[in-house]
Amino acid sequence: MTANKVAVFRKEHFNAAHRLFNPAWQDEQNSKVFGKCSNPNFHGHNYELVVKVVGVPDPVTGFVIDLKFLSDLVQEHVLNRFDHKNLNVEVAEFATMNPTAENIAIVIYNTLRPHIDQQHDLQVRLYETERNFVEYPA
Amino acid sequence: MTANKVAVFRKEHFNAAHRLFNPAWQDEQNSKVFGKCSNPNFHGHNYELVVKVVGVPDPVTGFVIDLKFLSDLVQEHVLNRFDHKNLNVEVAEFATMNPTAENIAIVIYNTLRPHIDQQHDLQVRLYETERNFVEYPA
Amino acid sequence: MTANKVAVFRKEHFNAAHRLFNPAWQDEQNSKVFGKCSNPNFHGHNYELVVKVVGVPDPVTGFVIDLKFLSDLVQEHVLNRFDHKNLNVEVAEFATMNPTAENIAIVIYNTLRPHIDQQHDLQVRLYETERNFVEYPA
Amino acid sequence: MTANKVAVFRKEHFNAAHRLFNPAWQDEQNSKVFGKCSNPNFHGHNYELVVKVVGVPDPVTGFVIDLKFLSDLVQEHVLNRFDHKNLNVEVAEFATMNPTAENIAIVIYNTLRPHIDQQHDLQVRLYETERNFVEYPA
Amino acid sequence: MTANKVAVFRKEHFNAAHRLFNPAWQDEQNSKVFGKCSNPNFHGHNYELVVKVVGVPDPVTGFVIDLKFLSDLVQEHVLNRFDHKNLNVEVAEFATMNPTAENIAIVIYNTLRPHIDQQHDLQVRLYETERNFVEYPA
Amino acid sequence: MTANKVAVFRKEHFNAAHRLFNPAWQDEQNSKVFGKCSNPNFHGHNYELVVKVVGVPDPVTGFVIDLKFLSDLVQEHVLNRFDHKNLNVEVAEFATMNPTAENIAIVIYNTLRPHIDQQHDLQVRLYETERNFVEYPA
Repeated sequence: MTANKVAVFRKEHFNAAHRLFNPAWQDEQNSKVFGKCSNPNFHGHNYELVVKVVGVPDPVTGFVIDLKFLSDLVQEHVLNRFDHKNLNVEVAEFATMNPTAENIAIVIYNTLRPHIDQQHDLQVRLYETERNFVEYPA
Repeated sequence: MTANKVAVFRKEHFNAAHRLFNPAWQDEQNSKVFGKCSNPNFHGHNYELVVKVVGVPDPVTGFVIDLKFLSDLVQEHVLNRFDHKNLNVEVAEFATMNPTAENIAIVIYNTLRPHIDQQHDLQVRLYETERNFVEYPA
Repeated sequence: MTANKVAVFRKEHFNAAHRLFNPAWQDEQNSKVFGKCSNPNFHGHNYELVVKVVGVPDPVTGFVIDLKFLSDLVQEHVLNRFDHKNLNVEVAEFATMNPTAENIAIVIYNTLRPHIDQQHDLQVRLYETERNFVEYPA
Repeated sequence: MTANKVAVFRKEHFNAAHRLFNPAWQDEQNSKVFGKCSNPNFHGHNYELVVKVVGVPDPVTGFVIDLKFLSDLVQEHVLNRFDHKNLNVEVAEFATMNPTAENIAIVIYNTLRPHIDQQHDLQVRLYETERNFVEYPA
Repeated sequence: MTANKVAVFRKEHFNAAHRLFNPAWQDEQNSKVFGKCSNPNFHGHNYELVVKVVGVPDPVTGFVIDLKFLSDLVQEHVLNRFDHKNLNVEVAEFATMNPTAENIAIVIYNTLRPHIDQQHDLQVRLYETERNFVEYPA
Repeated sequence: MTANKVAVFRKEHFNAAHRLFNPAWQDEQNSKVFGKCSNPNFHGHNYELVVKVVGVPDPVTGFVIDLKFLSDLVQEHVLNRFDHKNLNVEVAEFATMNPTAENIAIVIYNTLRPHIDQQHDLQVRLYETERNFVEYPA
């Protein structure tokens, strides 16, 4: 913990379809490793996304980052590409990468990182369900 | 309210893909009416399902219905058919019926009703998202 | 319960300041009846609003009411007037009426009722806090 | 729904130990019917209790019932007797009655009913877990 | 992570009114930077406060810190000053400091720090809404 | 934060009875230190358990650890021993150790640690109630 830094969090959500599978494998192997998550007709989730930005608050505004600005960034760069989409079929990064929660979080981090002030740390938490979630970087 | 009756509720969940569309319409009309929910590649949800059964508690057990039995009923007749499935493609009722939350709730009610004691009332609440949900019968 | 009717629910939220007091009373009497809720400098809440509309689903769309349309109605007629406002000072109905959760729910119901199809029933649930909430009509 | 009536809700909680069993049965029969809930050493829950009171708001205060008064009633008559207690051993009503969620809700209703204005309707919702809950009267 | 240390958390809440603005700016500039949060008549929130204390559990009690004691500390030093108050008008620290979530969290941390054993680390998480929250120190 | 590591979380729950007390003390001293939590007849909780595993995702599967495997581990080693049990009476570790949330979390960590790949970090979060929770290691 760094005493003069504050972490701010913004929660957003999107709904998407996906399936888990490795295109290099036969269906049988995919089904064995990924179970019902490998259904070729897809299933889907209400993803909850929490974006964390860490920095020193601006002494004039009292903000680390304007959460309205952060929300707009997520809308423009993440939700517009992911919400109500089929991740495997419609999001380029997952054409060759399995859309596990881990990989989706990494893609979201890499998407947002160039748009956040380099003096600020960034972390992404992604809930696939209320009981399964991930954080990147750990 | 009937003074000697108690309502018992059991909450379950399933993850599924779907799209909203009327097969009698062109894509343009579907897109106009259903917006991004009509994406031909599907999207998905974490559906939360609350099943309500109303009756007089058994004086010997103190149960209206054993919630373990009710949970097993939902597992066998609903979750096995809906969880990690594509509702439009893999659930027979939605081959010709739009899988709106309203219609999914009606299908679940009709599926469970024959398996619940006729002396008991049944109601289904279905959350498509935390902010959009339905109840049947109203 | 009416067997062919479905209830649909849309959850929205707004943040507002208010105080509870009866302008016909002295401060002492207001403080005695309303306690710290009567603080003349106001306090505030994150209000959660759930709007319920009951009707028969349209056989063509499968919707009782398009939840996007319902959400837009609430935005236009309720949130635009209540969100980030001081209810006592800036919302006309509360110039002479105490903004209790009960009265806020009645005002929201009366505001929305003319904009909802007369064949549909309407009910409003309002959370002032997670532990205190109201429903109108009961 | 009665157009001039409002329902108000107050949520409280208590933590208690219990076991499900019928004292007229042998252990084997209790274990068969109630499963692990019949463990003779008890288990326990964080019960969430929602008390609903329905009436016409007072025109002077705007309250159906002061929620502070309702909360104090629940504290005095329910929480003081149930919180951090063993329901089977320490709450007289369950000396001879199985403390199912159904029966606990009925006991709470009967306990509170005499303390609520007879012009007001009363209903109790009790969550044994997030997934198992009951309502009385139904 | 330090292997023999445990973090304990206590969640509390308070309701308060506030507005965001910089007294050195004209209304137009405040409105441009803080949007509807700058409403001169105030708005408000149900703040959720999570206090985290990190230390080695006492071998005799098994407690890092008695959560009842921690809850009483928060009640005495934070809730008594913030709950049902207007932060800008009634809390001295915000007479000259913008009550953003960041600054409120820093003030709460500085208020509690002298009352917590110096061997224990302290961190504050503050939810302004379910979707906007902060943590200090980060 | 380590840039190529991802944290994955799995949430489980169990219901158990317990009491807080130090067997070396008289009842009066236990009651003074632990209050109503020391009730000799026990009380209980719905414990929510969040298990966090940190590591580098497998490039073939995209998983840090298969959450189905992690859930099964928790079921086998924790839930089978704790769920619907009396922690003081039926879980060997608490025969001589006070079952505070801190100590329960340490026991769960020590139970799971040998079953998790040594290249992965492990952390346990345990909610005794929604308002009281702990994390180990801190």
